[in-house]
Amino acid sequence: MSAQDSSIEKVVIVGSGPAGWTAALYASRANLNPLVFPGRAASSDVLPGGQLMLTTDVENYPGFPEGITGPDMMDLFFKQALRFGTRIVADKGIATESEVGLYGQFQNAANLDLSSSPFTITGDNDFECKAHSVIIATGAKANWMGIENELRLAKSGGGVSACAVCDGALPAFRDKPLAVVGGGDSAVEEATYLSKFGSKVYMIHRRDELRASKIMAQRAIDNDKIEILWNKTLIDVLGDDHITAAKLKDTVTGEESTLDLSGLFLAIGHTPATEFLNGQLDLDAKKYIKLADPYRSTTNIDGVFAAGDCVDSVYRQAITASGMGCKAALDAERWLADKGIE
Amino acid sequence: MSAQDSSIEKVVIVGSGPAGWTAALYASRANLNPLVFPGRAASSDVLPGGQLMLTTDVENYPGFPEGITGPDMMDLFFKQALRFGTRIVADKGIATESEVGLYGQFQNAANLDLSSSPFTITGDNDFECKAHSVIIATGAKANWMGIENELRLAKSGGGVSACAVCDGALPAFRDKPLAVVGGGDSAVEEATYLSKFGSKVYMIHRRDELRASKIMAQRAIDNDKIEILWNKTLIDVLGDDHITAAKLKDTVTGEESTLDLSGLFLAIGHTPATEFLNGQLDLDAKKYIKLADPYRSTTNIDGVFAAGDCVDSVYRQAITASGMGCKAALDAERWLADKGIE
Repeated sequence: MSAQDSSIEKVVIVGSGPAGWTAALYASRANLNPLVFPGRAASSDVLPGGQLMLTTDVENYPGFPEGITGPDMMDLFFKQALRFGTRIVADKGIATESEVGLYGQFQNAANLDLSSSPFTITGDNDFECKAHSVIIATGAKANWMGIENELRLAKSGGGVSACAVCDGALPAFRDKPLAVVGGGDSAVEEATYLSKFGSKVYMIHRRDELRASKIMAQRAIDNDKIEILWNKTLIDVLGDDHITAAKLKDTVTGEESTLDLSGLFLAIGHTPATEFLNGQLDLDAKKYIKLADPYRSTTNIDGVFAAGDCVDSVYRQAITASGMGCKAALDAERWLADKGIE
Repeated sequence: MSAQDSSIEKVVIVGSGPAGWTAALYASRANLNPLVFPGRAASSDVLPGGQLMLTTDVENYPGFPEGITGPDMMDLFFKQALRFGTRIVADKGIATESEVGLYGQFQNAANLDLSSSPFTITGDNDFECKAHSVIIATGAKANWMGIENELRLAKSGGGVSACAVCDGALPAFRDKPLAVVGGGDSAVEEATYLSKFGSKVYMIHRRDELRASKIMAQRAIDNDKIEILWNKTLIDVLGDDHITAAKLKDTVTGEESTLDLSGLFLAIGHTPATEFLNGQLDLDAKKYIKLADPYRSTTNIDGVFAAGDCVDSVYRQAITASGMGCKAALDAERWLADKGIE
């Protein structure tokens, strides 16, 4: 198959959060006509628009001094990528900027075959294509307890969040009692961060010792504003528009109690959307994609690049994910030029 | 000196491009009250607002589907950082959000003493402070020929640019004759990129062979749209609002000629603003700051972080620099928490 076979996509992008759309923006401006599988909200781990679709106010994406909602921001990213020629895999086929409204739901990339080049990507609704290069930008999902009221208040900006760095500085949390659910290093990190804002930060932990490293556990214990509630598990979240309290259950005695709160932060880990790769890309112990060069976006497979939260267990911000999406597109563009694929 | 001595700044940020303001935004939202030395246009390598102050339309910063000018974009970054409590070193002292207009010019960090902690930072106009942590975000300058008309048309968006990836896709360059000045790998990269848009791409090179690696030189030679003009140097740029032609001089015969052009791209290297560090931070061969961990923002000195173009000889985009600024602020925040500095 010739490298110049025009039925082969130059760049396929999987995922449509900040990393995916930024990769699409850069690839489309480089005349690569990228094809994006945005994901599917209903049935997969890859949510079209990414995690920001679940958030309300975004105050820390540079360029919006008054803040912007997550969905509005992703709509701007989407429009910008489409403006320069990005195409989208929808249920009814490939859609361009002018057609997107007609094409209904978007497809998720259900399967990737990276065993030989060009790669084969199969959508979840009757679509298959071949591609010289692929950018994986499928993101990661914050883990939730799975309580109905928790998700309801998270989606509506009602004081429940899975990202203290993103949301902790919002006025609603200033000098108010807050809680973090979890007992690992990142739970302590989030509690420490929140202790700058809240009047008090409870750590709700289901065991009688922290999973956190000793130095991090000591930091929680030494912080006057942090109080660890041992052997407690979250069973419900109370509040109509904004959280007012959490319902807890003692994991030893079974006793139930109510804790007044103005903010609740989940810190029970993230799950990167990498399972669909079926082990074709090298992952780290936490299942994040391992970059071949941590400064760039290359993976263990030549022509496959990765960007955003599916790579990043450290920062997980819209701006960092976008930066990585840009890197992946520029790396793919230079890789294609190296191969003489135009 | 106690770690909690309140006269010691928690974070000082040097530079005010996308990396500097994003670091300030994240550090201020983390309640660290960052202090920024923005730089000084007149007398230093560090331009307040960074390289984007020299550009007109920015179409590739995600979030602005209709594009935005460089100075407007940096104004938004600046306002957003100040909104959350960032302070600025101005000529008349430290300015906060409400005072910034009163304080006249900003200061550049003339000298850093990183030999002992806390570090000492001296401004270029009667200001000195100590800081537990420092973020270096001083950027890099594109090298120019230094011709008056070249800089005039670059600043006014008149078809002269030092970044093909940033500007090459603009409508003014479609199917028009373009030229790249330079003969290294990045000149070939820029010419290859531009060959997707222009009707023709000349490479203006002052010698009779390219400095580019063999594989890159071959790529330029193989590309039908690229024509290399050997032994030519740029001596003037013609055009009132937009470039119409370049004036060249043959470096062997001294003969002058005119080349009709609709776009001119300088690719004669960049100079990172790292000289003021006086060798205190490890630099690479091209004088960019070497990161201790290329995925993060740490340097060879504990408590000193780096972000943006002063680190990056590869991508040099607003979005990548911003992502690095975010990383530096989060790294500094966690480093301070580790040290018990609150």
